[in-house]
Order: sequence, then structure tokens, then C-alpha cells
Amino acid sequence: MRYNGNGVIEAETAGSLMKKEFITIQTTSTVDEAIMHLRETVGEMKNIHYLYIINEFDGLVGALSIRELLSANGSKPVTEVMVKKLSTFTADKDQEKVARIFQDTDLVSIPVVNRQNVILGVVHVEDILDVMQQEATEDIHKMASVTTAPPALEGGLMDATVGLLYRKRIVWLVILVFMNVFSGAGIAHFEDIIEANIALVFFLPLLVDSGGNAGSQSATLVIRAMAIGDVKIRDWFKMFTKEITVAAAMGFTMALAVSVVGVVRGGVDIAIVVALTMALIVVVGSVVGMSLPFIFKKLKLDPATASAPLITSLCDIVGVLIYFGIAAWFLNL
Amino acid sequence: MRYNGNGVIEAETAGSLMKKEFITIQTTSTVDEAIMHLRETVGEMKNIHYLYIINEFDGLVGALSIRELLSANGSKPVTEVMVKKLSTFTADKDQEKVARIFQDTDLVSIPVVNRQNVILGVVHVEDILDVMQQEATEDIHKMASVTTAPPALEGGLMDATVGLLYRKRIVWLVILVFMNVFSGAGIAHFEDIIEANIALVFFLPLLVDSGGNAGSQSATLVIRAMAIGDVKIRDWFKMFTKEITVAAAMGFTMALAVSVVGVVRGGVDIAIVVALTMALIVVVGSVVGMSLPFIFKKLKLDPATASAPLITSLCDIVGVLIYFGIAAWFLNL
Repeated sequence: MRYNGNGVIEAETAGSLMKKEFITIQTTSTVDEAIMHLRETVGEMKNIHYLYIINEFDGLVGALSIRELLSANGSKPVTEVMVKKLSTFTADKDQEKVARIFQDTDLVSIPVVNRQNVILGVVHVEDILDVMQQEATEDIHKMASVTTAPPALEGGLMDATVGLLYRKRIVWLVILVFMNVFSGAGIAHFEDIIEANIALVFFLPLLVDSGGNAGSQSATLVIRAMAIGDVKIRDWFKMFTKEITVAAAMGFTMALAVSVVGVVRGGVDIAIVVALTMALIVVVGSVVGMSLPFIFKKLKLDPATASAPLITSLCDIVGVLIYFGIAAWFLNL
Repeated sequence: MRYNGNGVIEAETAGSLMKKEFITIQTTSTVDEAIMHLRETVGEMKNIHYLYIINEFDGLVGALSIRELLSANGSKPVTEVMVKKLSTFTADKDQEKVARIFQDTDLVSIPVVNRQNVILGVVHVEDILDVMQQEATEDIHKMASVTTAPPALEGGLMDATVGLLYRKRIVWLVILVFMNVFSGAGIAHFEDIIEANIALVFFLPLLVDSGGNAGSQSATLVIRAMAIGDVKIRDWFKMFTKEITVAAAMGFTMALAVSVVGVVRGGVDIAIVVALTMALIVVVGSVVGMSLPFIFKKLKLDPATASAPLITSLCDIVGVLIYFGIAAWFLNL
């Protein structure tokens, strides 16, 4: 946390990324005067790509790239050639949004201004490369249920201590153990039918896994699409209808595949139970996987919390209920 | 595929990223002449940050940033102030490596040269932002068993057709169905002991899931660390010893957690079987998850192929064998 005279600068914001070196010129200057000022001032400064034009209150009114400066007519006032419509950041802008704006524009530097529009510093695109890597790593870790609260692990896996790795992984692992107790509760509920049809247990991991796999795919696709700005909360229904269709097609295909195994292993009755279960588990798993990121986002949580392990555990619980529910119904007909 | 006179330019390389606009100056020029040439030539060209100095054979011998140009003494020959030690790319350099080099240096543009060291074009850092996003998306999709072969999905999840989504997801889902048959085979092998101790089935999803969760975490951490250049193949042993330690600690913690449930649900004998299984499953799952990316990389495959669904399915098979194996041994004592 560093004070900038206007308040505290938080980490992972435009304020924490900006560099304090930049060159300004008064609105009263001509292009030639600006070039001369540039040549006198730039010295050892790095990453000077633009000249910023300020008024008598130090307020930012325009910018000129060095290229534009050099190709303009020397006697013109800078105000005639400068770009007036500028992208700027406030110091508290989240670095993920900063990176998104750099991606959408062709700028190599964007100034950070305060409420009086005075320049505090400049964010450079070279620093955004590290931001993008950091943000992607954070999402990837979240999606595997590795805790991303500080201290950061992106510092380097090779340097991370055993203690740090333990703390970042154990939290969700234990939570999921207790969540998975519910799948056990589902099994307990159907213990009689399992005992009467032991062949059913053969297919249990295969079926619940398929639901979890399909769900993980859905969740991953949605989370990443949200992260790169491709999908918004309002897109839920359109995604839902597409997901149901894809999942139905996948469920049908996988039901066919597994019914072959079912017939060989347990006979036609078991094959029917298994095929019906597979189709339904894949559809339900996909819808769960697709919807969770939207739900988390709606609750103002990070959608990446809808990790593969979480989806898989939920699909286990649901899968057990679907499987033995269908078995109980069908085999008792 | 486009011809550049020297051969074919493939997609996702330095050659496909480069822009053809750049400004060169002869070694015989002075700084003042260079600035004048710059002012005359730059016109509407975008992203001109450096001037490239070439000899009489058009070979690249040095570069000057516009800043360095403007702050230098006007009458000096450019050869005296230019930077001679330059980063360059060949046109076939993979875009992932190009991005890594931009991250490691402070440059905003890097020239692409041919074998005679003649400049073919320039890669700009603003274009690397899109490359990084694309590469991260590709890895994330692979890690959820979504096929990444063209046509690309990063084009936009909202625009992807049902057919495309189906094709990209069904491949691995079906492969994993048949892989999961082996977990069923493991269960079939132990059918007698399951029938005699139905309470064991209660814990089956919980235990194999925990192995898969721990394994997914390990695989994810290693794959990402490899992608950002943090971990290399030769680091396997150091990672292995760290992983065994972390996994043992996690396994112990989770065994404690689950033994509480075990005592309540099935009595002390079942609790011991379940706790032993949990500890072993977590260690084995973690080691499998950590090692697979190394194995894939050694086989010249993308380490990201060691996806969460794949790891989970492997851990299912292994978990079933461990669980019922321990049960068979312990309960028959």
C-alpha cells in the first residue's frame, strides 16, 4: 500500500502498475517547441511513446504519439494536431480490466489520472504481459480448487515451501470430503437395491465420472469465456439452450457406448438402467457445470470457484441419486 | 499460409504476427539525418518505436529507439549511438516462445529477420496480448479435456455451433468412458467382499474422488508452471520429493477427517480401512497427477493433456484397487 497524495494505492490496480515517468507540454506550445522540449527532457527515461498536453491547471487535454509529433508541421500549435479523445484510468481500476482495455485498443501507454484529470502516471503495455499471465494463473489454480489468497504461488512452484503448498490445497480437499459424504448418504439410502443387484456397483464410478467430466468441460468453457469477456451474465439462457442440446447429443452417444458394456456385463435390464442413467447424468452434469459459474458471478463471487473438483463432487451426489433412483424404479417394474 | 519469398509462413509464428511496416536508415547517416528521414517517412505508419540501421547489403546491424534518437547529439553517426546487440526472431519461431521473450525483455517491438539478417517485419508487443490470451485459453481447454484442434473455439463460445461444441467434447468423454470400465473391472474383482460389507460402498465415491481431486491439483500446478517456464523436465525429482511430502500431510489430514465419518457410519474396522485408504489414495493420486505432465512432455506431447478428467479417471481405477484391496486384506485378518 503506497500513498499517492490522493489516497491509498491498492495492489493489482492501474495505480500499482503505473510508472511515474512521463513528459508533458503546455497547450501553448507548437510542434517544434514540443520536439525541442522532448529532446531536452527525455534523457534516460524509458518507454516514452506519447507526449501529454496539459492546460494551466495541469489537467490532461490531449496526447500526441512521438510518431505524430515528428510527422506534423513544425509551426502548428500542438492543440491542432493532438488527439483529444483519450483513454485514461483511475488509480483504483482493477488490473484485469486494465489488461482488457489494452487488448481492445492499439495503445502502448495509457495515463492514470485523478479526479481533477491531472496525470499521476502511465501504464505501459509491456507490464500488462505479466498481469495477463498472473490473472490466467490465478484462474487456472482456482479451477483446480487451489486457494489463491496471498501469499501468491505464481511466485514459482519450484520455490514454494511444503507448508505453503499444503495450506493452499488442503482447504478445498477437506471441504470436498465432507461434501462427498452426501453421495455416501445417497448410497446408504439405496443399500437394499445395491445388495440385490451387485452388478450395479460395477458401473458406479464410470457413470458418476462421466457426469463430472461433462460438467467440468462445461464449467471450464464458461469460466474462460467469462474471463476473456466473451460471455456475460445476461447470456445465461442462450448458453443454457445450447448446452442442453449439446449435452443431449453427448449423453445419447455415451449411453450407446456404455450400453454395449452393460449388456456384456449385466444383461439387458442392467444395460437399460445404465444407458438411461448415462444420458441423464451427462445432461444434468453439463447443466450444473454450465450454471454454477453464472450463479457464483451473480452472487458476486469469482466464477472460477466452480472448479473441476467441486463440479465432480456435486455430480457424484446427483449421479448416485439418478443412478440408483432409476435402478430402483426400473428393476422393480 | 502465405509466401514471403523465403518460404511458407505458418500460423502462430513470429512470421504470422509481424507487421511489414518499419523504417530503416543506412549506417552512413548521422542522428540529424535519421530524424529528418523519420519525419519524412513516418507519415501514417503505426507503431513505429524503433529505427533499424542497415548496411549496404540490407543486413540489420543496429537499432535506435525514437527516444534515444531524439536525446542524442545531432551530428553523431548513428552507428555510434545505436544498440548493436539485438533480439531478433526467425519467421518460424513459435508464438508461445515469442511471447515469453517479450515478457522477459522491455522491448515493445522485435524485428523478424531471414538467414541473411535482412528485416522481414516487426512483431509488436500489443499483438502479444492476444497471443497470450489465446495460448492460455488453449491450455485451459486442454486441461478440461476439450479438444483444441482447429477450428478454434476461442473464436467465441457464444458463436460456437452445437455441432462444433459436440465434436470438441465428445472425443475425450467417450475415451474416458472406456477407460473407466477398468475401475468397474476392479470392482468386479472384489465383488464378494463388497457384498459381505455393503457399508464399504458408502465411502467409494468419497475416497476415489479425493484421490482425483488431489491429483487434479498436482497436475494443474505442474502444467501451469511448465507453461510459464517455471518448471522443466529435469526438475521432476525435486518436485517429486516435495509432492510426496505435501501429499502425505494432506493424506493424513483427510484420513483423520474421514475416519470420524467412518466410525459413525460403519464402526472402527471400517473406519480403519477407510482412513488407510484415504491416506494412500491421496498420496498415489498426487504422485500420478504430478508425474503425468512430465511423462507427456517427455513423450513430446502437450503436458496439458494430463487433464482433470483424465487424472480423475486414472485415480478411480487406482482408488478402487487400493480401497477394496485394503478392505480385503484388513477385514480378513
